[in-house]
Amino acid sequence: MSCDLIALANAGIRGLHPYQAGKPVSELERELGISNVVKLASNENPLGISDKVKQALVSEFTELSRYPDANGFYLKEKLASRLGVESAQITLGNGSNDVLELIARTFVSAEHEVMFAEHAFVVYPLVTQAIGAKPCVVPAKAYGHDLDAMAAAISDKTKMIFIANPNNPTGTFLTKESLKAFIAAVPKDVIVVLDEAYDEYVDASDRANSVEWLNDYPNLVVTRTFSKAYGLAGLRVGYSVSCADMAGLLNRLRQPFNVNSLALKAAEIALDDNEFLHESVSVNRQGMTQLTDFFRQQQINFIPSWGNFVTFDTGRNGSDVYDALLHQGVIVRPIGGYGLPNHLRVSIGTSEENNRFIDALTSVLSL
Amino acid sequence: MSCDLIALANAGIRGLHPYQAGKPVSELERELGISNVVKLASNENPLGISDKVKQALVSEFTELSRYPDANGFYLKEKLASRLGVESAQITLGNGSNDVLELIARTFVSAEHEVMFAEHAFVVYPLVTQAIGAKPCVVPAKAYGHDLDAMAAAISDKTKMIFIANPNNPTGTFLTKESLKAFIAAVPKDVIVVLDEAYDEYVDASDRANSVEWLNDYPNLVVTRTFSKAYGLAGLRVGYSVSCADMAGLLNRLRQPFNVNSLALKAAEIALDDNEFLHESVSVNRQGMTQLTDFFRQQQINFIPSWGNFVTFDTGRNGSDVYDALLHQGVIVRPIGGYGLPNHLRVSIGTSEENNRFIDALTSVLSL
Repeated sequence: MSCDLIALANAGIRGLHPYQAGKPVSELERELGISNVVKLASNENPLGISDKVKQALVSEFTELSRYPDANGFYLKEKLASRLGVESAQITLGNGSNDVLELIARTFVSAEHEVMFAEHAFVVYPLVTQAIGAKPCVVPAKAYGHDLDAMAAAISDKTKMIFIANPNNPTGTFLTKESLKAFIAAVPKDVIVVLDEAYDEYVDASDRANSVEWLNDYPNLVVTRTFSKAYGLAGLRVGYSVSCADMAGLLNRLRQPFNVNSLALKAAEIALDDNEFLHESVSVNRQGMTQLTDFFRQQQINFIPSWGNFVTFDTGRNGSDVYDALLHQGVIVRPIGGYGLPNHLRVSIGTSEENNRFIDALTSVLSL
Repeated sequence: MSCDLIALANAGIRGLHPYQAGKPVSELERELGISNVVKLASNENPLGISDKVKQALVSEFTELSRYPDANGFYLKEKLASRLGVESAQITLGNGSNDVLELIARTFVSAEHEVMFAEHAFVVYPLVTQAIGAKPCVVPAKAYGHDLDAMAAAISDKTKMIFIANPNNPTGTFLTKESLKAFIAAVPKDVIVVLDEAYDEYVDASDRANSVEWLNDYPNLVVTRTFSKAYGLAGLRVGYSVSCADMAGLLNRLRQPFNVNSLALKAAEIALDDNEFLHESVSVNRQGMTQLTDFFRQQQINFIPSWGNFVTFDTGRNGSDVYDALLHQGVIVRPIGGYGLPNHLRVSIGTSEENNRFIDALTSVLSL
């Protein structure tokens, strides 16, 4: 019997494009007949995970047949103490992707509009489409959020606004003054989601203490992740901070065991491992200098980035350059899907990995 | 500024009751001033995780700063081979809870009805409520699914039917003949979700090969988990098997990194560790005999169970008995929320854990 299930699916799902994930590196090596591949494609931490985290994980093995703590009690206590908020203001997610989806599903339905910037993180249009809501995409200014245009575009139908700071994949950054003024101008019945996945890489002097703004703006929710500077992408843990009422709503919808036991433990330990965090940020800063110096020398245009990646203009079709780099064993990220067909995004690796990329790009572009 | 966010939330969310999770055992011990607590509350595997899985996990640590394989390539290949299906028919979830939610969100919207049995697994009403759809609860027959009544209750509005076999928390079981006849009678535009979380505990002679039915019924989807007999509850991995078209739809909505790296690896290894699986099932069988012999001796009514737990009638308010057992250091599960206020559900533990439960219940009920 044939399947005619697509007609049975909800309207939002019918319009969703299946996520096209990359193959495992090992599969890619087999297919291309290459080895020693360098992956600078997913804004991961090139240092791996902290030794302290590794040690702690082993001690959790005996408990793995038990369900995780559904409340994430200890991790939330520790985060709350660090952030100067109540535990009840925190919502844990299976990566910040999970939290972003929970926030949208809690407040947005098919009759609403969701606003985000051109070139902003792909999860925003995806969750909007999945709900069947209408996206309102505000054109970018210098590849980043145009906050004035976004404020002007708010209508009665706007239910949620996503802002990524720094933004992925462009790396652009909004100052705390401009951001706070924008949030103050948003009507209180519009939820503002401030996605700070790359916050730890921003210089302390530039960084907004956005969590402090929650006292004034109950419609604000800040999301962060352990997948980047903390090096835990494979374990999946992110979180949001909001007023307690909003966290209560998100927790109604949250799957009780959404964050696994090892992720909870790893995040607890990682939060205290300042040495690893500082090294991650330091290696990133050095690598950013290494790559941007190279781009400047070669007169390759790049978008100044506050994250752990940098997006550059190949001056030709980015996908072709991506393919050519792949055959040299270097994986970067094509971002045609973000409306930037000539650009590629490269994650900052170790010094050696960055050199591999530099050599491969030099060869591919015949510099 | 006060929060008035509840009014801003979607209708389905406003009616959801926040999940009330138990405290960590360590917190409970501290509060009650007790130690050596036995937890027989969550249908977990009392053997822990397999040694082979533990060994494999350590070797994955170096990759934990990388995102998980979004396709779960190797695990899906292995599952497909084991089940005799194509890899494209499998959808991986962050526990089967995640898959159950994905299925509902893909097909059900607020104008639909979702059918499930009285006393059936709590996730079915929760996902229905979250969507804002109407639950159609069909009264149980002998604590289990009344398939004739369910077939008769199907209407034009019915979009999805959840069936748990065995059912949690009652442990009841449907024969393959009755189940297949029911599925054949369901209209093809109604999705049937067959939740087989406890399948591995069922005698091979009784067990339906429900995956074979997928060839005839594209509206059928079977869900299973690694949280029970495979002992991986803390790592979060479950899956569904369906026709490839349905899996394609579910994968559109699935968060790409919903299953973490260690869960993917652990499930791969656990699938091959037949020795551990057989021991898990064997220990469960012995424990089931141990507990049901005790219930019979004491003339305590229990519901015959095909799972790794058994639900019994305390003859009084179950919550009171639950509290009294707690103070004896034995955690079981009150199931008043399932419409069974006098019953308690006890998970099968090791022989020693079962004895702790027997002694505590003997004391509490003054047997």
